[in-house]
Amino acid sequence: MKGASKTIARVLEEIRKHQRFCIIGHQRPDGDCIGSQIALTLALQNDARDVVCWNQDPVPHKLQFLDPSHIMSCPTAEQPFDCVIAVDSASLDRVGEVVDFISHRKVLINIDHHASNTRYGDLNWIAPAEPSSGELVYRLLKAARWPIKNQIADCLFTAISTDTGSFQYPTTRPSTYVIAGDLVSKGADLSTICDEVYQSYPLPRVKLLKHVYNQFKLTNDNEIAYFWLRPADYHRTGATRDDTEGLIDHIRNIEPVVVACLFEELEPEVIRISLRSKSPLVNVSDIAKQFSGGGHKAAAGARVTGKPMTIQRRVVKAIRSALKEGKQADRISSR
Amino acid sequence: MKGASKTIARVLEEIRKHQRFCIIGHQRPDGDCIGSQIALTLALQNDARDVVCWNQDPVPHKLQFLDPSHIMSCPTAEQPFDCVIAVDSASLDRVGEVVDFISHRKVLINIDHHASNTRYGDLNWIAPAEPSSGELVYRLLKAARWPIKNQIADCLFTAISTDTGSFQYPTTRPSTYVIAGDLVSKGADLSTICDEVYQSYPLPRVKLLKHVYNQFKLTNDNEIAYFWLRPADYHRTGATRDDTEGLIDHIRNIEPVVVACLFEELEPEVIRISLRSKSPLVNVSDIAKQFSGGGHKAAAGARVTGKPMTIQRRVVKAIRSALKEGKQADRISSR
Repeated sequence: MKGASKTIARVLEEIRKHQRFCIIGHQRPDGDCIGSQIALTLALQNDARDVVCWNQDPVPHKLQFLDPSHIMSCPTAEQPFDCVIAVDSASLDRVGEVVDFISHRKVLINIDHHASNTRYGDLNWIAPAEPSSGELVYRLLKAARWPIKNQIADCLFTAISTDTGSFQYPTTRPSTYVIAGDLVSKGADLSTICDEVYQSYPLPRVKLLKHVYNQFKLTNDNEIAYFWLRPADYHRTGATRDDTEGLIDHIRNIEPVVVACLFEELEPEVIRISLRSKSPLVNVSDIAKQFSGGGHKAAAGARVTGKPMTIQRRVVKAIRSALKEGKQADRISSR
Repeated sequence: MKGASKTIARVLEEIRKHQRFCIIGHQRPDGDCIGSQIALTLALQNDARDVVCWNQDPVPHKLQFLDPSHIMSCPTAEQPFDCVIAVDSASLDRVGEVVDFISHRKVLINIDHHASNTRYGDLNWIAPAEPSSGELVYRLLKAARWPIKNQIADCLFTAISTDTGSFQYPTTRPSTYVIAGDLVSKGADLSTICDEVYQSYPLPRVKLLKHVYNQFKLTNDNEIAYFWLRPADYHRTGATRDDTEGLIDHIRNIEPVVVACLFEELEPEVIRISLRSKSPLVNVSDIAKQFSGGGHKAAAGARVTGKPMTIQRRVVKAIRSALKEGKQADRISSR
């Protein structure tokens, strides 16, 4: 924690030198990215700095309430900046096309909570123990004594809440709850956040869910669940890629299921596979590696070319082997 | 808050006089009820009291991890008690058959957060501003300086988390988050709680969800959504009444929907209707009253006898009128 305070002090010292800022985040931004970007932008604007807030992709529909005055935009021309601050972005690649517009800068600050962060900044504040980047921005604002007004409170609460699965993930720390409480006391509007972020699904998403519940398959004594998404499913339902977020959790959460898999046909014979494991005995990143992919123990993926049914057979077979090996290892260790 | 401290002191003073306790809760118990009952039972047992913990109904499947040693039971014979403590139960009716087994008692303490509580105890601690009874039990334990061990932390975290919709409902207060953080630091096992309570659906529940997504109807420009549950749906899916909890939220959460309605055929020509409103302009308790039911502005219900399709027509018509009136009132007030 002492190290963190020093890093925060260094980041603030750097920020205080500059006037023209650009706040960037990763492509296909989520709640943590959008909330952190807008909160930091507002805080710097309140402190009389010139700030632009850029993302390659637009603010997702359900997060647009965080940006009523359209602070966030997509860059169209290069601008000179004193200081570019990247938030929630594990690598410069993740920032996408925005990287082409920020080369006129004096310094790049990198604020993130992903352990895989490549430390691409001139100054890096990487805190893998924190469950969200929103929590880092909160700490920065507190250290700077910049006021946390209503809209900032909404942004930071949304950032922290979405990246902890509504304070459910085991990564959530005691201090996370304390910060959430502080943000509510500072005016975070739970009613709106709850309605917009968690309790509002566009009709196309609902039609996709119907598809999932009708199409998913169970195998290996209900331990493996999988379903397919094909271009025709998007056409039929009017859904976009945004609407697929979290779909796999609906089959992951079925009680007997240990490994869930989503097969997504991106183009003819180009399939993206997404894998989720509920058991410490099954590491889905090992399975993804067999298909030249990667990820974490509990969530991984790969992109595979070939005939859909052949890929499905190979992937399901690999999952089945991993389940079998997991059980054998468990039996040996419990002897 | 000062009034609350006095009440807590009075409750503790009464508890300290007694040795033989019975902790009761409402029938069809939810997370707040189960968590509060077990946490209070464990705390009193740790303080060397004789405690039984009774509920008319068994612990729901997904909450059984809170009671590994089967502290909770269903009463079968009367026993003499010094002190009976009811938690989370708005009236003695809500306790169900348990009431027949607790007449040999010196004192009845009533601890609850429902505004509708009928104050049936000899001593009543009713705190309608608190989002859960779990928070009241937490305050009691803190005031008594009884240790909050792992299992108690699990119970109270689950109680508070489930009754705030995972810290999302607007009733959640800054102090709620602070308490949740304290419970996590005292050992509440987020990983297990998250898996068991939020991320695990038995197959019959999943089959019911498939039914909902296939059967729900939208009308009135997608502002009204409804679906039916009939005895055959339970038979076909293997689902029980427990599995229907929160099903209505899946159609309530569809973006354009303002009012959601579930029609449940309990017996031939006996229909329970459940109503949810997302708009402050539509008070579903007024609609329920037209069918001799009741509830709150945002959630209400009624039991109606008659031909199913006739009832559906009448209810949808009443919702449509309420939506129209709401819009008219809105137009007048915004002139």
